Amino acid sequence: MQIAMVQDKIVPFEDLAPVYLDRGTFFGDGVYEVLRSYDGHIFALEDHLKRFARSLNETNITGVDIDDIRTKVVEAFEKAKIDNAKIYFHITRGSGVRDHTSITNIKPNFFLTVTTLEDATEQKTNGIKVSTFPDWRWKRCDIKSLNLLANVLAKFDAQKKGCSEAILVNDNDQITEGSSSAFFAVIQSKLVTHPLGKDILPSITRKIVLEIARDTDLEVLEKTITPAQAKNADELFIAVTTRDIVPVVEFDGQMTGDGTPGKYTKQLMQKFAEMVKRF
Amino acid sequence: MQIAMVQDKIVPFEDLAPVYLDRGTFFGDGVYEVLRSYDGHIFALEDHLKRFARSLNETNITGVDIDDIRTKVVEAFEKAKIDNAKIYFHITRGSGVRDHTSITNIKPNFFLTVTTLEDATEQKTNGIKVSTFPDWRWKRCDIKSLNLLANVLAKFDAQKKGCSEAILVNDNDQITEGSSSAFFAVIQSKLVTHPLGKDILPSITRKIVLEIARDTDLEVLEKTITPAQAKNADELFIAVTTRDIVPVVEFDGQMTGDGTPGKYTKQLMQKFAEMVKRF
Repeated sequence: MQIAMVQDKIVPFEDLAPVYLDRGTFFGDGVYEVLRSYDGHIFALEDHLKRFARSLNETNITGVDIDDIRTKVVEAFEKAKIDNAKIYFHITRGSGVRDHTSITNIKPNFFLTVTTLEDATEQKTNGIKVSTFPDWRWKRCDIKSLNLLANVLAKFDAQKKGCSEAILVNDNDQITEGSSSAFFAVIQSKLVTHPLGKDILPSITRKIVLEIARDTDLEVLEKTITPAQAKNADELFIAVTTRDIVPVVEFDGQMTGDGTPGKYTKQLMQKFAEMVKRF
Repeated sequence: MQIAMVQDKIVPFEDLAPVYLDRGTFFGDGVYEVLRSYDGHIFALEDHLKRFARSLNETNITGVDIDDIRTKVVEAFEKAKIDNAKIYFHITRGSGVRDHTSITNIKPNFFLTVTTLEDATEQKTNGIKVSTFPDWRWKRCDIKSLNLLANVLAKFDAQKKGCSEAILVNDNDQITEGSSSAFFAVIQSKLVTHPLGKDILPSITRKIVLEIARDTDLEVLEKTITPAQAKNADELFIAVTTRDIVPVVEFDGQMTGDGTPGKYTKQLMQKFAEMVKRF
Protein backbone atom coordinates (compact mmCIF):
# COMPACT_ATOMS: atom_id res chain seq x y z
CA MET A 1 0.00 0.00 0.00
CA GLN A 2 1.41 3.37 -0.98
CA ILE A 3 1.74 5.54 2.08
CA ALA A 4 2.90 8.93 3.25
CA MET A 5 4.15 10.20 6.55
CA VAL A 6 3.52 13.75 7.73
CA GLN A 7 5.66 14.56 10.76
CA ASP A 8 5.07 11.38 12.84
CA LYS A 9 1.79 10.33 11.30
CA ILE A 10 1.35 7.66 8.65
CA VAL A 11 -1.48 8.23 6.17
CA PRO A 12 -2.55 6.36 3.04
CA PHE A 13 -1.00 8.09 0.03
CA GLU A 14 -4.45 8.54 -1.54
CA ASP A 15 -5.68 10.43 1.52
CA LEU A 16 -2.98 13.12 1.31
CA ALA A 17 -4.37 16.62 0.85
CA PRO A 18 -3.09 18.10 -2.45
CA VAL A 19 -1.11 20.76 -0.56
CA TYR A 20 1.31 18.01 0.53
CA LEU A 21 2.03 17.17 -3.09
CA ASP A 22 2.59 20.76 -4.18
CA ARG A 23 5.39 21.09 -6.72
CA GLY A 24 6.12 24.37 -4.98
CA THR A 25 7.53 22.34 -2.11
CA PHE A 26 9.07 19.46 -4.08
CA PHE A 27 10.86 21.62 -6.63
CA GLY A 28 10.23 25.26 -5.84
CA ASP A 29 8.27 25.02 -9.07
CA GLY A 30 6.41 28.28 -8.80
CA VAL A 31 6.69 32.07 -8.96
CA TYR A 32 5.63 34.84 -6.62
CA GLU A 33 5.19 38.54 -6.02
CA VAL A 34 5.22 40.82 -2.97
CA LEU A 35 3.23 44.06 -3.07
CA ARG A 36 2.40 46.69 -0.54
CA SER A 37 -0.30 49.25 0.00
CA TYR A 38 0.10 52.83 1.17
CA ASP A 39 -2.84 54.26 3.10
CA GLY A 40 -5.40 51.92 1.69
CA HIS A 41 -4.15 51.83 -1.91
CA ILE A 42 -2.23 48.95 -3.49
CA PHE A 43 0.97 50.33 -4.99
CA ALA A 44 2.25 49.46 -8.47
CA LEU A 45 -0.18 46.58 -8.91
CA GLU A 46 0.09 46.55 -12.69
CA ASP A 47 3.88 46.52 -12.61
CA HIS A 48 3.81 43.53 -10.28
CA LEU A 49 1.22 41.69 -12.37
CA LYS A 50 3.25 42.31 -15.50
CA ARG A 51 6.39 40.90 -13.88
CA PHE A 52 4.37 37.98 -12.52
CA ALA A 53 3.05 37.18 -15.99
CA ARG A 54 6.62 37.21 -17.27
CA SER A 55 7.77 34.84 -14.51
CA LEU A 56 4.93 32.45 -15.35
CA ASN A 57 5.84 32.63 -18.99
CA GLU A 58 9.58 32.04 -18.45
CA THR A 59 8.81 28.96 -16.33
CA ASN A 60 6.10 27.82 -18.74
CA ILE A 61 3.43 27.65 -16.05
CA THR A 62 0.23 27.82 -18.05
CA GLY A 63 -3.46 28.12 -17.34
CA VAL A 64 -3.23 31.26 -15.24
CA ASP A 65 -5.42 34.25 -16.00
CA ILE A 66 -3.75 37.48 -14.86
CA ASP A 67 -7.13 39.25 -14.70
CA ASP A 68 -8.26 36.59 -12.27
CA ILE A 69 -5.13 37.17 -10.16
CA ARG A 70 -5.80 40.92 -10.13
CA THR A 71 -9.37 40.29 -8.98
CA LYS A 72 -8.17 37.99 -6.21
CA VAL A 73 -5.52 40.42 -4.99
CA VAL A 74 -8.00 43.29 -4.84
CA GLU A 75 -10.71 41.17 -3.23
CA ALA A 76 -8.36 39.90 -0.53
CA PHE A 77 -6.92 43.36 0.11
CA GLU A 78 -10.38 44.91 0.47
CA LYS A 79 -11.48 42.13 2.75
CA ALA A 80 -8.42 42.53 4.99
CA LYS A 81 -8.93 46.27 5.53
CA ILE A 82 -5.28 46.87 6.40
CA ASP A 83 -4.18 50.32 5.23
CA ASN A 84 -0.48 49.55 5.08
CA ALA A 85 -0.47 45.92 4.06
CA LYS A 86 2.04 43.47 2.68
CA ILE A 87 0.48 41.32 0.00
CA TYR A 88 2.28 38.11 -0.89
CA PHE A 89 1.09 35.65 -3.50
CA HIS A 90 2.47 32.72 -5.40
CA ILE A 91 1.38 30.26 -8.03
CA THR A 92 2.92 26.83 -8.32
CA ARG A 93 2.64 24.49 -11.28
CA GLY A 94 0.26 22.34 -9.25
CA SER A 95 0.03 19.26 -7.06
CA GLY A 96 0.80 15.70 -8.08
CA VAL A 97 2.99 12.65 -7.56
CA ARG A 98 6.58 13.88 -7.31
CA ASP A 99 8.02 13.61 -10.79
CA HIS A 100 9.97 16.34 -12.57
CA THR A 101 7.90 16.32 -15.76
CA SER A 102 4.89 14.10 -15.23
CA ILE A 103 2.27 16.80 -14.93
CA THR A 104 -0.76 15.53 -16.78
CA ASN A 105 -3.99 17.06 -15.56
CA ILE A 106 -2.51 19.24 -12.86
CA LYS A 107 -3.75 22.74 -12.23
CA PRO A 108 -1.77 25.67 -10.84
CA ASN A 109 -2.12 26.33 -7.12
CA PHE A 110 -2.73 29.87 -5.90
CA PHE A 111 -1.84 31.12 -2.45
CA LEU A 112 -1.96 34.66 -1.05
CA THR A 113 -1.60 36.44 2.26
CA VAL A 114 -2.43 39.98 3.32
CA THR A 115 -0.60 40.90 6.51
CA THR A 116 0.25 44.06 8.39
CA LEU A 117 3.40 45.66 7.07
CA GLU A 118 6.10 45.83 9.70
CA ASP A 119 7.23 49.32 10.62
CA ALA A 120 10.59 50.23 9.08
CA THR A 121 10.89 53.71 10.58
CA GLU A 122 13.93 52.87 12.66
CA GLN A 123 15.79 51.33 9.69
CA LYS A 124 14.84 54.22 7.43
CA THR A 125 15.84 56.86 9.96
CA ASN A 126 19.15 55.42 11.12
CA GLY A 127 20.13 53.24 8.22
CA ILE A 128 21.17 49.59 8.28
CA LYS A 129 24.36 47.54 8.27
CA VAL A 130 24.98 45.14 5.41
CA SER A 131 27.54 42.42 4.79
CA THR A 132 28.60 40.58 1.64
CA PHE A 133 27.98 36.95 0.80
CA PRO A 134 28.75 34.90 -2.34
CA ASP A 135 25.97 35.00 -4.90
CA TRP A 136 25.09 31.30 -4.98
CA ARG A 137 21.81 31.79 -6.80
CA TRP A 138 20.84 30.18 -10.07
CA LYS A 139 21.41 31.73 -13.49
CA ARG A 140 17.86 33.02 -13.93
CA CYS A 141 17.54 35.57 -11.15
CA ASP A 142 15.34 37.60 -13.48
CA ILE A 143 12.59 35.07 -12.71
CA LYS A 144 10.94 35.67 -9.34
CA SER A 145 10.79 31.99 -8.42
CA LEU A 146 10.34 30.05 -5.20
CA ASN A 147 13.96 28.84 -5.38
CA LEU A 148 15.28 31.11 -2.65
CA LEU A 149 17.55 28.95 -0.51
CA ALA A 150 20.64 30.86 -1.62
CA ASN A 151 18.93 34.08 -0.54
CA VAL A 152 17.93 32.58 2.81
CA LEU A 153 21.46 31.32 3.53
CA ALA A 154 22.92 34.70 2.60
CA LYS A 155 20.48 36.48 4.88
CA PHE A 156 21.26 34.13 7.77
CA ASP A 157 24.93 34.93 7.34
CA ALA A 158 24.17 38.65 7.48
CA GLN A 159 22.03 38.18 10.56
CA LYS A 160 24.88 36.30 12.26
CA LYS A 161 27.11 39.30 11.56
CA GLY A 162 24.55 41.70 13.07
CA CYS A 163 23.50 42.99 9.66
CA SER A 164 20.04 43.47 8.15
CA GLU A 165 20.81 42.53 4.58
CA ALA A 166 23.29 40.42 2.63
CA ILE A 167 24.79 41.98 -0.48
CA LEU A 168 25.51 39.28 -3.04
CA VAL A 169 28.85 39.16 -4.82
CA ASN A 170 29.40 36.99 -7.88
CA ASP A 171 32.51 35.05 -8.97
CA ASN A 172 33.86 38.13 -10.76
CA ASP A 173 33.87 40.12 -7.52
CA GLN A 174 30.88 42.13 -8.71
CA ILE A 175 27.91 43.08 -6.59
CA THR A 176 24.66 41.88 -8.14
CA GLU A 177 21.99 42.89 -5.60
CA GLY A 178 20.81 42.27 -2.05
CA SER A 179 19.37 38.92 -0.96
CA SER A 180 15.91 40.52 -1.03
CA SER A 181 16.55 44.03 -2.32
CA ALA A 182 18.16 46.07 -5.08
CA PHE A 183 21.46 47.73 -4.20
CA PHE A 184 22.56 51.28 -5.01
CA ALA A 185 25.71 53.31 -4.50
CA VAL A 186 26.24 57.04 -4.82
CA ILE A 187 29.77 57.71 -6.05
CA GLN A 188 30.73 61.27 -6.95
CA SER A 189 27.17 62.38 -7.80
CA LYS A 190 26.57 59.24 -9.79
CA LEU A 191 23.84 56.78 -8.80
CA VAL A 192 25.22 53.35 -9.62
CA THR A 193 23.33 50.04 -9.72
CA HIS A 194 23.73 46.69 -11.47
CA PRO A 195 22.27 46.67 -15.00
CA LEU A 196 19.17 44.55 -15.68
CA GLY A 197 19.80 41.05 -16.99
CA LYS A 198 19.54 37.43 -15.95
CA ASP A 199 21.61 37.91 -12.82
CA ILE A 200 19.26 40.28 -10.99
CA LEU A 201 15.56 40.62 -10.41
CA PRO A 202 13.90 43.39 -12.44
CA SER A 203 12.98 45.14 -9.20
CA ILE A 204 10.02 47.47 -9.43
CA THR A 205 11.31 49.67 -6.60
CA ARG A 206 14.66 49.84 -8.43
CA LYS A 207 12.81 51.10 -11.53
CA ILE A 208 10.98 53.74 -9.52
CA VAL A 209 14.22 54.90 -7.85
CA LEU A 210 15.83 55.36 -11.26
CA GLU A 211 12.80 57.39 -12.41
CA ILE A 212 12.85 59.57 -9.32
CA ALA A 213 16.59 60.14 -9.67
CA ARG A 214 15.94 62.04 -12.91
CA ASP A 215 14.63 64.92 -10.80
CA THR A 216 17.88 65.17 -8.85
CA ASP A 217 21.45 66.13 -9.68
CA LEU A 218 22.38 62.46 -9.78
CA GLU A 219 23.59 60.90 -12.98
CA VAL A 220 22.31 57.32 -13.30
CA LEU A 221 24.88 54.69 -14.18
CA GLU A 222 23.76 51.10 -14.64
CA LYS A 223 27.02 49.24 -14.13
CA THR A 224 28.46 46.76 -11.68
CA ILE A 225 30.70 47.73 -8.81
CA THR A 226 32.96 45.70 -6.56
CA PRO A 227 32.71 45.40 -2.77
CA ALA A 228 35.87 47.56 -2.55
CA GLN A 229 34.15 50.31 -4.54
CA ALA A 230 31.04 50.01 -2.38
CA LYS A 231 33.16 50.39 0.74
CA ASN A 232 34.46 53.68 -0.54
CA ALA A 233 31.17 54.97 -1.93
CA ASP A 234 29.80 58.28 -0.67
CA GLU A 235 26.39 56.77 0.02
CA LEU A 236 24.74 53.37 -0.16
CA PHE A 237 21.14 52.23 0.04
CA ILE A 238 18.89 49.30 -0.73
CA ALA A 239 15.46 49.41 -2.38
CA VAL A 240 12.71 46.92 -1.71
CA THR A 241 8.92 46.94 -2.11
CA THR A 242 8.10 46.58 1.56
CA ARG A 243 10.39 49.41 2.75
CA ASP A 244 11.09 51.38 -0.47
CA ILE A 245 14.48 53.07 0.20
CA VAL A 246 16.57 52.12 3.22
CA PRO A 247 19.94 53.86 3.79
CA VAL A 248 23.02 51.69 4.35
CA VAL A 249 25.44 53.13 6.90
CA GLU A 250 27.89 50.25 7.24
CA PHE A 251 29.24 47.89 4.59
CA ASP A 252 31.24 44.84 5.68
CA GLY A 253 32.16 46.53 8.93
CA GLN A 254 33.23 49.81 7.34
CA MET A 255 31.28 52.99 7.96
CA THR A 256 29.65 54.45 4.84
CA GLY A 257 30.16 58.22 4.49
CA ASP A 258 29.82 59.71 7.96
CA GLY A 259 27.79 56.75 9.23
CA THR A 260 24.42 58.44 8.77
CA PRO A 261 22.00 58.34 5.80
CA GLY A 262 23.48 60.33 2.91
CA LYS A 263 22.04 63.51 1.46
CA TYR A 264 21.12 62.05 -1.94
CA THR A 265 19.63 59.01 -0.24
CA LYS A 266 17.47 61.24 1.92
CA GLN A 267 16.48 63.29 -1.11
CA LEU A 268 15.39 60.14 -2.96
CA MET A 269 13.48 58.92 0.10
CA GLN A 270 11.70 62.24 0.26
CA LYS A 271 10.78 62.16 -3.42
CA PHE A 272 9.63 58.55 -3.10
CA ALA A 273 7.34 59.48 -0.19
CA GLU A 274 5.90 62.44 -2.15
CA MET A 275 5.30 60.27 -5.20
CA VAL A 276 3.49 57.70 -3.07
CA LYS A 277 1.17 60.38 -1.67
CA ARG A 278 0.28 61.48 -5.21
CA PHE A 279 -0.38 58.11 -6.82
CA MET B 1 -7.70 41.47 9.74
CA GLN B 2 -4.81 39.46 8.38
CA ILE B 3 -6.08 36.99 5.84
CA ALA B 4 -4.97 34.31 3.44
CA MET B 5 -6.42 32.98 0.23
CA VAL B 6 -6.02 29.36 -0.82
CA GLN B 7 -7.08 28.89 -4.44
CA ASP B 8 -10.40 30.83 -4.39
CA LYS B 9 -11.09 30.65 -0.70
CA ILE B 10 -10.40 33.41 1.83
CA VAL B 11 -9.46 32.24 5.33
CA PRO B 12 -8.33 34.14 8.41
CA PHE B 13 -4.53 34.07 8.52
CA GLU B 14 -4.61 32.51 12.00
CA ASP B 15 -6.68 29.59 10.73
CA LEU B 16 -4.12 28.56 8.09
CA ALA B 17 -2.81 25.03 8.60
CA PRO B 18 0.99 25.14 9.12
CA VAL B 19 1.57 23.28 5.86
CA TYR B 20 0.54 26.45 4.00
CA LEU B 21 3.29 28.39 5.73
CA ASP B 22 6.01 25.83 5.05
CA ARG B 23 9.37 27.41 4.26
CA GLY B 24 9.79 24.51 1.87
CA THR B 25 7.25 26.20 -0.39
CA PHE B 26 8.15 29.84 0.26
CA PHE B 27 11.91 29.42 -0.19
CA GLY B 28 12.67 25.79 -1.04
CA ASP B 29 14.23 25.94 2.41
CA GLY B 30 14.67 22.21 2.90
CA VAL B 31 16.63 19.13 1.85
CA TYR B 32 15.57 15.70 0.65
CA GLU B 33 16.57 12.16 -0.26
CA VAL B 34 15.24 9.48 -2.58
CA LEU B 35 15.93 5.82 -1.76
CA ARG B 36 14.77 2.58 -3.22
CA SER B 37 14.30 -0.98 -2.05
CA TYR B 38 15.19 -4.14 -3.92
CA ASP B 39 13.04 -7.17 -3.10
CA GLY B 40 11.97 -5.95 0.31
CA HIS B 41 15.29 -4.43 1.41
CA ILE B 42 16.06 -0.72 1.53
CA PHE B 43 19.25 -0.11 -0.44
CA ALA B 44 22.13 2.05 0.79
CA LEU B 45 20.12 3.56 3.64
CA GLU B 46 23.17 4.62 5.63
CA ASP B 47 24.75 6.34 2.61
CA HIS B 48 21.56 8.29 2.07
CA LEU B 49 21.22 9.22 5.74
CA LYS B 50 24.82 10.37 5.80
CA ARG B 51 24.29 12.59 2.77
CA PHE B 52 21.03 13.88 4.26
CA ALA B 53 22.81 14.80 7.49
CA ARG B 54 25.38 16.69 5.45
CA SER B 55 22.66 18.58 3.53
CA LEU B 56 21.01 19.56 6.82
CA ASN B 57 24.34 20.71 8.16
CA GLU B 58 25.26 22.76 5.09
CA THR B 59 21.90 24.55 5.21
CA ASN B 60 22.07 24.90 8.99
CA ILE B 61 18.74 23.19 9.56
CA THR B 62 18.99 22.08 13.17
CA GLY B 63 16.94 20.00 15.57
CA VAL B 64 16.83 16.89 13.39
CA ASP B 65 17.80 13.50 14.84
CA ILE B 66 19.11 11.21 12.09
CA ASP B 67 18.31 8.13 14.18
CA ASP B 68 14.73 9.31 14.30
CA ILE B 69 14.70 9.72 10.52
CA ARG B 70 16.08 6.19 10.11
CA THR B 71 13.33 4.83 12.37
CA LYS B 72 10.66 6.69 10.42
CA VAL B 73 11.95 5.48 7.05
CA VAL B 74 12.06 1.86 8.19
CA GLU B 75 8.67 2.07 9.90
CA ALA B 76 7.01 3.57 6.83
CA PHE B 77 8.70 1.09 4.49
CA GLU B 78 7.60 -1.90 6.58
CA LYS B 79 4.09 -0.55 6.81
CA ALA B 80 3.84 -0.07 3.03
CA LYS B 81 4.92 -3.65 2.20
CA ILE B 82 6.09 -2.72 -1.29
CA ASP B 83 9.04 -4.91 -2.32
CA ASN B 84 10.41 -2.54 -4.92
CA ALA B 85 9.58 0.81 -3.45
CA LYS B 86 10.63 4.40 -4.00
CA ILE B 87 11.10 6.20 -0.73
CA TYR B 88 11.12 9.98 -0.84
CA PHE B 89 11.53 12.19 2.18
CA HIS B 90 12.30 15.80 2.92
CA ILE B 91 12.77 18.06 5.88
CA THR B 92 12.12 21.77 5.71
CA ARG B 93 13.25 24.38 8.20
CA GLY B 94 9.66 24.64 9.42
CA SER B 95 6.47 26.67 9.08
CA GLY B 96 6.00 30.32 9.94
CA VAL B 97 5.18 33.78 8.68
CA ARG B 98 7.09 34.29 5.43
CA ASP B 99 10.31 36.04 6.37
CA HIS B 100 13.79 35.00 5.22
CA THR B 101 15.36 34.86 8.67
CA SER B 102 12.61 35.29 11.25
CA ILE B 103 12.48 31.72 12.47
CA THR B 104 12.02 31.89 16.19
CA ASN B 105 10.35 28.81 17.64
CA ILE B 106 9.88 26.97 14.40
CA LYS B 107 10.43 23.24 14.16
CA PRO B 108 11.53 21.29 11.09
CA ASN B 109 8.76 19.65 9.05
CA PHE B 110 9.15 16.03 7.97
CA PHE B 111 7.40 14.52 4.97
CA LEU B 112 7.84 11.08 3.41
CA THR B 113 6.22 8.91 0.77
CA VAL B 114 6.63 5.23 -0.05
CA THR B 115 5.36 4.48 -3.53
CA THR B 116 5.67 1.69 -6.06
CA LEU B 117 8.80 2.07 -8.14
CA GLU B 118 8.00 2.48 -11.80
CA ASP B 119 9.34 -0.24 -14.06
CA ALA B 120 12.41 0.88 -16.02
CA THR B 121 12.93 -2.36 -17.98
CA GLU B 122 12.27 -0.79 -21.35
CA GLN B 123 14.70 2.09 -20.72
CA LYS B 124 17.34 -0.24 -19.36
CA THR B 125 17.00 -2.68 -22.26
CA ASN B 126 16.88 -0.24 -25.15
CA GLY B 127 18.59 2.79 -23.71
CA ILE B 128 17.35 6.37 -23.67
CA LYS B 129 17.84 9.56 -25.64
CA VAL B 130 19.25 12.61 -23.89
CA SER B 131 19.65 16.25 -24.85
CA THR B 132 21.72 19.06 -23.42
CA PHE B 133 20.49 22.13 -21.56
CA PRO B 134 22.35 25.00 -19.85
CA ASP B 135 23.18 24.28 -16.23
CA TRP B 136 21.18 27.08 -14.61
CA ARG B 137 21.40 25.63 -11.11
CA TRP B 138 22.79 27.39 -8.07
CA LYS B 139 26.40 27.15 -6.92
CA ARG B 140 25.79 24.53 -4.20
CA CYS B 141 24.62 21.54 -6.20
CA ASP B 142 26.41 19.36 -3.63
CA ILE B 143 23.46 20.12 -1.31
CA LYS B 144 20.38 18.03 -2.12
CA SER B 145 17.95 20.90 -1.63
CA LEU B 146 14.37 21.58 -2.67
CA ASN B 147 15.54 24.31 -5.08
CA LEU B 148 15.00 22.29 -8.24
CA LEU B 149 13.35 24.62 -10.72
CA ALA B 150 16.43 24.64 -12.97
CA ASN B 151 16.29 20.84 -13.03
CA VAL B 152 12.57 20.88 -13.82
CA LEU B 153 12.97 23.37 -16.67
CA ALA B 154 15.85 21.34 -18.12
CA LYS B 155 13.81 18.14 -17.95
CA PHE B 156 10.85 19.82 -19.66
CA ASP B 157 13.14 20.89 -22.47
CA ALA B 158 14.38 17.31 -22.86
CA GLN B 159 10.82 16.00 -22.87
CA LYS B 160 9.90 18.46 -25.59
CA LYS B 161 12.76 17.07 -27.67
CA GLY B 162 11.56 13.48 -27.14
CA CYS B 163 14.35 12.75 -24.67
CA SER B 164 14.22 11.15 -21.20
CA GLU B 165 16.92 13.17 -19.51
CA ALA B 166 18.58 16.58 -19.80
CA ILE B 167 22.36 16.67 -19.56
CA LEU B 168 23.44 19.94 -17.99
CA VAL B 169 26.23 21.99 -19.55
CA ASN B 170 27.90 24.84 -17.68
CA ASP B 171 29.22 28.16 -19.01
CA ASN B 172 32.60 26.57 -19.77
CA ASP B 173 30.97 24.06 -22.13
CA GLN B 174 31.51 21.28 -19.60
CA ILE B 175 28.96 18.61 -18.75
CA THR B 176 28.21 18.55 -15.04
CA GLU B 177 25.53 15.87 -14.65
CA GLY B 178 21.96 15.01 -15.64
CA SER B 179 18.99 16.98 -14.33
CA SER B 180 18.24 14.07 -11.97
CA SER B 181 21.11 11.65 -12.59
CA ALA B 182 24.88 11.29 -12.75
CA PHE B 183 26.38 11.14 -16.23
CA PHE B 184 29.10 8.80 -17.49
CA ALA B 185 30.98 8.33 -20.74
CA VAL B 186 33.15 5.45 -21.85
CA ILE B 187 35.93 6.75 -24.06
CA GLN B 188 38.67 4.35 -25.16
CA SER B 189 38.27 2.01 -22.17
CA LYS B 190 38.14 4.92 -19.78
CA LEU B 191 35.09 5.56 -17.62
CA VAL B 192 34.78 9.34 -17.40
CA THR B 193 32.55 11.34 -15.06
CA HIS B 194 32.58 14.82 -13.54
CA PRO B 195 34.69 15.05 -10.36
CA LEU B 196 32.91 15.65 -7.04
CA GLY B 197 32.64 19.27 -5.93
CA LYS B 198 30.08 21.99 -5.44
CA ASP B 199 28.77 21.76 -8.99
CA ILE B 200 27.38 18.22 -8.80
CA LEU B 201 25.46 16.12 -6.32
CA PRO B 202 27.56 13.50 -4.54
CA SER B 203 25.43 10.77 -6.11
CA ILE B 204 25.36 7.49 -4.23
CA THR B 205 24.71 5.50 -7.41
CA ARG B 206 27.68 7.29 -9.00
CA LYS B 207 29.85 6.15 -6.09
CA ILE B 208 28.67 2.56 -6.47
CA VAL B 209 29.30 2.61 -10.23
CA LEU B 210 32.87 3.78 -9.63
CA GLU B 211 33.35 0.96 -7.09
CA ILE B 212 31.96 -1.65 -9.45
CA ALA B 213 34.11 -0.35 -12.29
CA ARG B 214 37.19 -1.51 -10.39
CA ASP B 215 36.28 -5.08 -11.30
CA THR B 216 36.27 -4.30 -15.01
CA ASP B 217 38.94 -3.34 -17.56
CA LEU B 218 37.76 0.26 -17.32
CA GLU B 219 40.08 2.92 -16.03
CA VAL B 220 38.18 5.51 -13.96
CA LEU B 221 38.81 9.13 -14.82
CA GLU B 222 37.05 11.84 -12.81
CA LYS B 223 37.21 14.76 -15.19
CA THR B 224 34.82 16.93 -17.14
CA ILE B 225 34.00 16.41 -20.78
CA THR B 226 32.32 18.64 -23.33
CA PRO B 227 29.13 17.86 -25.25
CA ALA B 228 31.30 17.37 -28.38
CA GLN B 229 33.34 14.71 -26.55
CA ALA B 230 30.16 13.05 -25.28
CA LYS B 231 28.82 12.91 -28.83
CA ASN B 232 31.87 10.99 -29.92
CA ALA B 233 32.10 8.74 -26.85
CA ASP B 234 32.01 4.96 -27.33
CA GLU B 235 29.31 4.57 -24.70
CA LEU B 236 27.20 6.78 -22.48
CA PHE B 237 24.95 6.11 -19.52
CA ILE B 238 23.26 7.80 -16.60
CA ALA B 239 23.11 6.58 -13.01
CA VAL B 240 20.25 7.29 -10.65
CA THR B 241 18.94 5.67 -7.47
CA THR B 242 15.54 4.72 -8.86
CA ARG B 243 16.88 3.03 -12.02
CA ASP B 244 20.58 2.45 -11.18
CA ILE B 245 22.30 2.37 -14.61
CA VAL B 246 20.45 3.37 -17.78
CA PRO B 247 22.25 3.26 -21.15
CA VAL B 248 22.17 6.36 -23.33
CA VAL B 249 21.88 5.59 -27.04
CA GLU B 250 21.40 9.06 -28.45
CA PHE B 251 22.98 12.36 -27.40
CA ASP B 252 21.65 15.61 -28.85
CA GLY B 253 20.26 13.76 -31.85
CA GLN B 254 23.45 11.83 -32.57
CA MET B 255 23.55 8.05 -32.17
CA THR B 256 25.92 6.85 -29.47
CA GLY B 257 28.12 3.90 -30.55
CA ASP B 258 25.94 1.63 -32.68
CA GLY B 259 22.74 2.96 -31.11
CA THR B 260 22.37 0.10 -28.63
CA PRO B 261 23.59 -0.16 -25.01
CA GLY B 262 27.40 -0.50 -24.99
CA LYS B 263 29.32 -3.54 -23.79
CA TYR B 264 30.91 -1.86 -20.75
CA THR B 265 27.58 -0.32 -19.83
CA LYS B 266 25.95 -3.75 -19.93
CA GLN B 267 28.81 -5.22 -17.91
CA LEU B 268 28.36 -2.55 -15.23
CA MET B 269 24.59 -3.08 -15.20
CA GLN B 270 25.17 -6.81 -14.73
CA LYS B 271 27.60 -6.24 -11.87
CA PHE B 272 25.22 -3.73 -10.28
CA ALA B 273 22.39 -6.28 -10.41
CA GLU B 274 24.61 -8.98 -8.87
CA MET B 275 25.76 -6.66 -6.11
CA VAL B 276 22.15 -5.75 -5.31
CA LYS B 277 21.27 -9.45 -4.97
CA ARG B 278 24.10 -9.95 -2.50
CA PHE B 279 23.56 -6.95 -0.25
